[in-house]
Amino acid sequence: MSKGSQKVQIIPLGGLGEIGKNMTVIRVDDEILLIDAGLMFPDEDMLGIDLVIPDITYLLENRDMIKAIVLTHGHEDHIGALPYVLKQISVPVYGTKLTLGILEGRLKENNVGCGNLHPVMPGDIINLGCFSVGFIRVNHSIPDAVGLSIKTPLGMIVHTGDFKLDYTPIDGKMTDFRRFSDLGNKGVLVMMADSTNAEREGHTPSERTVGVAFDKAFHNARQRILVATFSSNVSRIQQVIDTAVRYKRKVAVLGRSMVNVVSISLELGYINAPEGTLIDIDEINNFSMSQIVIITTGSQGEPMSALTRMSMSDHRKVTIVPGDTIIISATPIPGNEKLVSKTIDNLLKLGANVIYGRSEGIHVSGHASQEELKLMHNLVRPKFFIPVHGEYRMLVRHAKIAHELGMPKENIFISENGQILEFTRDKGVVAGKVTSGRVLVDGLGVGDVGNIVLRDRRQLSQDGILIIVVTMNKATGQVVAGPDIVSRGFVYVRESEALMDEARERVQQALDRCQDSKVTEWATIKSNVRDALGRYLFEKTRRRPMILPIIMEI
Amino acid sequence: MSKGSQKVQIIPLGGLGEIGKNMTVIRVDDEILLIDAGLMFPDEDMLGIDLVIPDITYLLENRDMIKAIVLTHGHEDHIGALPYVLKQISVPVYGTKLTLGILEGRLKENNVGCGNLHPVMPGDIINLGCFSVGFIRVNHSIPDAVGLSIKTPLGMIVHTGDFKLDYTPIDGKMTDFRRFSDLGNKGVLVMMADSTNAEREGHTPSERTVGVAFDKAFHNARQRILVATFSSNVSRIQQVIDTAVRYKRKVAVLGRSMVNVVSISLELGYINAPEGTLIDIDEINNFSMSQIVIITTGSQGEPMSALTRMSMSDHRKVTIVPGDTIIISATPIPGNEKLVSKTIDNLLKLGANVIYGRSEGIHVSGHASQEELKLMHNLVRPKFFIPVHGEYRMLVRHAKIAHELGMPKENIFISENGQILEFTRDKGVVAGKVTSGRVLVDGLGVGDVGNIVLRDRRQLSQDGILIIVVTMNKATGQVVAGPDIVSRGFVYVRESEALMDEARERVQQALDRCQDSKVTEWATIKSNVRDALGRYLFEKTRRRPMILPIIMEI
Repeated sequence: MSKGSQKVQIIPLGGLGEIGKNMTVIRVDDEILLIDAGLMFPDEDMLGIDLVIPDITYLLENRDMIKAIVLTHGHEDHIGALPYVLKQISVPVYGTKLTLGILEGRLKENNVGCGNLHPVMPGDIINLGCFSVGFIRVNHSIPDAVGLSIKTPLGMIVHTGDFKLDYTPIDGKMTDFRRFSDLGNKGVLVMMADSTNAEREGHTPSERTVGVAFDKAFHNARQRILVATFSSNVSRIQQVIDTAVRYKRKVAVLGRSMVNVVSISLELGYINAPEGTLIDIDEINNFSMSQIVIITTGSQGEPMSALTRMSMSDHRKVTIVPGDTIIISATPIPGNEKLVSKTIDNLLKLGANVIYGRSEGIHVSGHASQEELKLMHNLVRPKFFIPVHGEYRMLVRHAKIAHELGMPKENIFISENGQILEFTRDKGVVAGKVTSGRVLVDGLGVGDVGNIVLRDRRQLSQDGILIIVVTMNKATGQVVAGPDIVSRGFVYVRESEALMDEARERVQQALDRCQDSKVTEWATIKSNVRDALGRYLFEKTRRRPMILPIIMEI
Repeated sequence: MSKGSQKVQIIPLGGLGEIGKNMTVIRVDDEILLIDAGLMFPDEDMLGIDLVIPDITYLLENRDMIKAIVLTHGHEDHIGALPYVLKQISVPVYGTKLTLGILEGRLKENNVGCGNLHPVMPGDIINLGCFSVGFIRVNHSIPDAVGLSIKTPLGMIVHTGDFKLDYTPIDGKMTDFRRFSDLGNKGVLVMMADSTNAEREGHTPSERTVGVAFDKAFHNARQRILVATFSSNVSRIQQVIDTAVRYKRKVAVLGRSMVNVVSISLELGYINAPEGTLIDIDEINNFSMSQIVIITTGSQGEPMSALTRMSMSDHRKVTIVPGDTIIISATPIPGNEKLVSKTIDNLLKLGANVIYGRSEGIHVSGHASQEELKLMHNLVRPKFFIPVHGEYRMLVRHAKIAHELGMPKENIFISENGQILEFTRDKGVVAGKVTSGRVLVDGLGVGDVGNIVLRDRRQLSQDGILIIVVTMNKATGQVVAGPDIVSRGFVYVRESEALMDEARERVQQALDRCQDSKVTEWATIKSNVRDALGRYLFEKTRRRPMILPIIMEI
């Protein structure tokens, strides 16, 4: 226990001003507790990037101080960076059983050892350095999610994790209102709370309402039923299984991540299915269409997912036929709207009946809406508040809610990644910045694609490239071969011969001018060629392809 | 009048299975009437493309048959392809005053003559070849919008155009219910109707409800007000002006397209502003913040628009300051969600109060929801129905509505672009296909970017390019210079020296192997180099950059 400590620092390294790559440092003197280590999916302008993880320079610089990583739940935006973090930092990881089960799969895929994972139960309180960390059950769109109480020498910190308040959860396990309320009674210094749905009025419906919509859809379906949802939404999958059992249907599971999560959940007891309900996808043809339900991935229209392949009649095992009922039990994540629409259109063209969209009741959010947030604030009644887990406007909205509930504005911190928020028992200040940001993962490369490479990819994607190759005699400066022009992604060359001939002519003229004026530095020759050709092409096409002069020397 | 005609053909050339590039052929014998000629904005996977227009091969092949083009309203997705069409086909164009006013601007920008434009009034009926075309006033998010009644020798065709049923339109000019009802009473052979909001339950709110929301926002604002909306939403702009007058504020207009439309609308009398209300943007500093309203473009987060520039503190004339109230009077068009969110976030960071989102009442749609569609079907009571103007699922939904209202399924045609729908007085059949599709416009190039160029741009955008240059002696087959490797958009080269050195080594080995085994065909050498390098790079990075070997010969 650090007895002399005067202050506690909270440093978000990800998740503020964005949805994704959640990661928060709690530091007292030279002891650090890390909450979550998530990834983010790339923005559209991060061309070719597979995923984004937080910059952990700060952690690497202070690696010896880190006592543990504690996890709130098993979603990618909370655990997805761990394979990268644990390769560089050796530190114990604490989480609930399902969270660690999912994490183990990820670590094995990345050849990272699983020896230092420590399961906890909701309700547990464990000591990690000077911190005493309590795991508090909350409802979310994945079971076994927890919020955290972190007792520090300076006072209690509460982190809600991702949460909603579901009064009728599928697994019967409710948010631990009593624990939050006890914490509130004893006094909480700082609360961090989920802001994802801070813009949404009212109360997020219970997961159970989706079961009612499933029942209606199953009742109406005469032939095969396919349900696409997030693989991590274990309660949703349980409801599909329950409804299938009621309607005497067998359930097959399809899609790599869906198969993984269902198998872990069955093994750990988070999914229950009567003997004989689950069948292998290869067995579906042993039953009639009216006896089958397929649970699958692809609710976001992801190009390689099972549902997307089926919608393009390109799936090895399942062919969509007229009469199929397809339930898309999800809403598009911002940015995926067009992919999802395209998938729906294609499925409809194949004659399927597709049930989708908000008005159908076949999806509910896993995040608290405004009235739930207000209840949480009323239970915990923190002195200071940091809205987390949200894009900037969501944080602003959540801050407004806290203010409307009576919290003084100066006690609310709309923060950003890398900011050091420093609290004493009665004061909170912004006390500087640490290194933070995005590390881009592209294939096996972690951080080898940065702004310059992305800028090049953007230019290449817009107007393509023209490469001009010339071989020159080093001694005489004479052109001995070329100039040759090769283009990709610029124009369809066979139909643009005149343009390309004239382009070559312009390059030749630029080279001649260089020779006439005795210019011999390659850099100058290249820049003259680039300018002359760029000007000509822009005038003719209003495009600005990348122009890459290459001079070979013999 | 074609007395002997036995059938009428309806051929959609655009707008079916998509939102955009609306264009429909009505043909009786050798007479063609063309309805609308719109453009579409490119999908995300059409890298570098500026806009998309319909393939008009069918029109070019039958150019002498085309009697006229009739326009329903002045939106880009209905008139935007005309600069391209009229360059190739000389034909009279009919539309209402505002529609032609906006079109003239577009034609002048593209150096196309405006000599053959013929204004009509809603209510007019004109003869064009064997067709008698009536222009029927409808409400939409732009004034002077019309539906069409097209009397053919085979019967009456009704095209609703884009419409909603607004009982309290801002300009006081209501949808001409009586005309639609009269047509219904006399008997309509085929109806084509707007399907944009066929998925939306209930009734689209009146444009006037936005005025109420504006009033509330203006009442609460203490400092400057900015309103971003679509430049073509003339009634919206009128409501901003009206509210500004009530609150004794001056109005400045910003953004190229906004300035254009406001100036045309003022000139033609579609916008009215009391003397002295409108001021130049350069005059805003002569007034206090509380006296100013700025109407601007950028409601879709378009990168070059005025609001987006302001949000990035990059606008020459307007700097956002804390206390500004910014009203985003639009909802994001699918695909623009993230751009709009980013703009809102940036404006909030600058300290502005931003009013946005569906729940605020600051935007309504211009398209009919389900109850309005039902009313239109009940008024017109066509024998046959073609849902138009919508993505596939919207057409399916609209067809379902028609069926639920009692129309037999075989009388409803969910069609696609290029399909020939042929109708006699009592029968409709699909009678073949004509050439149709997308022509991509990139800069000045119309159709010179096709699938090959796009495929290259996609590959370049994902993993970049490596260019390998070798100079060879033609006579001996000896390498006299190189191999040199140049990459763009692949990795940050300075930090990947080992990788690039090894890559060069692999290329050298491949060349050596070719020489040892006396391979001299360039194509084989290139393909060996490409394979060897591609394999190596994939193994090391899991990326597949474009690999472009170039051999120079001396």
